[in-house]
Amino acid sequence: MYKYRLMAPGPTPIPEVVLNEMANPITHHRTPGFEKVVAEVQENLKWLYQTKNDIIVLASSGSGGMEASLVNTCKPGDSVLVVNGGKFGERFAKIAKSHGLNPIVIDVEWGHAVDPQAIKDKLSSENIRAVCVQASETSTGVMHPIESISKIVSEHKDTLLIVDAITALGVINIPTDDWGIDILLGGSQKGLMLPPGIATMSVSDKAWALIEKNDTHKFYFNLNAERKALKNNTTAWTPAVTLFFGLRKVLSMMKEEGLENMFARHETMASSIRNAAQAVGLKLLAPEAPSNSVTAIYSPDNIDSGKIVAGLRDDFNMTIANGQDHLKGKIFRIGHIGYFDNLDMVAAWSAVEKQLMTLGHKFELGKGVAEIIKIL
Amino acid sequence: MYKYRLMAPGPTPIPEVVLNEMANPITHHRTPGFEKVVAEVQENLKWLYQTKNDIIVLASSGSGGMEASLVNTCKPGDSVLVVNGGKFGERFAKIAKSHGLNPIVIDVEWGHAVDPQAIKDKLSSENIRAVCVQASETSTGVMHPIESISKIVSEHKDTLLIVDAITALGVINIPTDDWGIDILLGGSQKGLMLPPGIATMSVSDKAWALIEKNDTHKFYFNLNAERKALKNNTTAWTPAVTLFFGLRKVLSMMKEEGLENMFARHETMASSIRNAAQAVGLKLLAPEAPSNSVTAIYSPDNIDSGKIVAGLRDDFNMTIANGQDHLKGKIFRIGHIGYFDNLDMVAAWSAVEKQLMTLGHKFELGKGVAEIIKIL
Repeated sequence: MYKYRLMAPGPTPIPEVVLNEMANPITHHRTPGFEKVVAEVQENLKWLYQTKNDIIVLASSGSGGMEASLVNTCKPGDSVLVVNGGKFGERFAKIAKSHGLNPIVIDVEWGHAVDPQAIKDKLSSENIRAVCVQASETSTGVMHPIESISKIVSEHKDTLLIVDAITALGVINIPTDDWGIDILLGGSQKGLMLPPGIATMSVSDKAWALIEKNDTHKFYFNLNAERKALKNNTTAWTPAVTLFFGLRKVLSMMKEEGLENMFARHETMASSIRNAAQAVGLKLLAPEAPSNSVTAIYSPDNIDSGKIVAGLRDDFNMTIANGQDHLKGKIFRIGHIGYFDNLDMVAAWSAVEKQLMTLGHKFELGKGVAEIIKIL
Repeated sequence: MYKYRLMAPGPTPIPEVVLNEMANPITHHRTPGFEKVVAEVQENLKWLYQTKNDIIVLASSGSGGMEASLVNTCKPGDSVLVVNGGKFGERFAKIAKSHGLNPIVIDVEWGHAVDPQAIKDKLSSENIRAVCVQASETSTGVMHPIESISKIVSEHKDTLLIVDAITALGVINIPTDDWGIDILLGGSQKGLMLPPGIATMSVSDKAWALIEKNDTHKFYFNLNAERKALKNNTTAWTPAVTLFFGLRKVLSMMKEEGLENMFARHETMASSIRNAAQAVGLKLLAPEAPSNSVTAIYSPDNIDSGKIVAGLRDDFNMTIANGQDHLKGKIFRIGHIGYFDNLDMVAAWSAVEKQLMTLGHKFELGKGVAEIIKIL
């Protein structure tokens, strides 16, 4: 018997106390009691986001939030600058196209971070409504340099910075207001340690000014309607009631841990996995700009990474992720987002070492695990 | 101490076994195990819908499903015929407008069902892409004559019938294929006895023919992408994983009860509440075309219905609904959707009688409850 270990870059494990909280009988959402929950969630989301901006909470997956960020701020024909260094950068471009926008794409080799200079150059030569970039690109485990990018974008008064922090929120320090991020996107099934079904987004005054006069076709993802509802501590459409209660619980747990501890814990877990991989002779996909959310590791040359993923599933009841597109079979990805501690990393990496040995990779058993134990 | 009684027309109570099911540790959605869940849910949704059509499951509230039904089948400039006999008919018109469609509205007095002849007349004089109508209009407790309407619409080969059955699915018999309904909409927090966060929709071949060639701006609610994903037993975007497990459980409970028993149970509960209301001298808002999902009852002339709603909340920990818009203060609405039995109706109505007495309404105490006991 092996317990189920969910170490994908989302969904992530849900704390038992949160599962219990969400198993309470449901209550109605148009009531003073639920309005209190919305207000408390709002206040604590602002704390997590490090912002004074309103945080809109949508009943959708993160992709719905990505769409909302574009369809409310841009109009057909507008140019948006998209950093495409993986599947989710690609998705921003697809969403832009599907709404008649003109995505200008900065292609970044998978495993690398974007060079802020490339963004600076495009912004000075083109008329750009919004810059879209992932804080943590889930498909490659890369962290893009959001602080540097935000300094560049803030010099352009008609350009917004939209940051997809869906796998970064609660993991990596991204101070929304200090860095002047206009829209920061989160999703419930990542650092928020909840089931999928909620997208969150902070929206700056600069963004609201555009949103208020935006008249593109939209209904469910109309942020003006959500902002109006939020003033009364409610949502425009029926909210994901159960997840709101879970969110309240999760945010109170996060506040107990504190932002600095939370970011430091993820840094420790991620760096220990990176050290462990290198100690057994494996190469990282993103050694120069690694994300603390997910670590992408090259499989040994002679081993299809799919075999590692399948072996961990079959022998250890553990879910990690394969590479996507041209990296399928080449890399495997370990998520360490949310409800994990350092000893979970020891357990996970032990299983990886066992699989590597079974599949014929030559290395000294326990060498990787030792790297993790070192920093306990 | 009074236990919480949620008798609004949604969200509705969630069976304890379903709450427990959803409190299990979360699993990843891109796995063979979850694909089996999607396949089983699909098969059983077809049973519930009485259709061979694919059922698309979206991670959104019911309003997202309403938007998806229009934005995938219609193009800006298209005319849609909207039956507006309450808040949700009104919402169809708003969605149509927000996407540049031309809503032609048949206004129906609140509390009344639409006359199918009015639809027939409009269809013969105008070029209509879709007819949009509620099966059960939640704001008034009216059931519109879907079978008659479907016969009329089916005579027009270029016109779709879109039925919002969000509060009707699993409550009222609406055989999708027998009646030839092109799109039938459901929502998780009603007859499906789940938390909000899932919208369901069956889509006919006639509708798919339009959807396939539709190129309006959309991304998250793109039904072609969902259909393609469904062929592999998955969803285009991250699904509401927890609700899928709940949905599997709920559908197995429904199959155990059987469609006929389920519809008969709701008919019994609804008619007993109608009889009870009349027995204590109250008038129904929709005596001629009552829905078995929700019963709208006029407050006595001298009593604001808000006082009944507030009294039930404060004295009995029970949620029912006030009227909306011009009926606010005039009517109160009792939902009897999903996880309820006849004895729940006795309990609920006893509380209503007590409130009526407290508020000074003159009637013989127990007269309404007796009507319910009669049909146990």
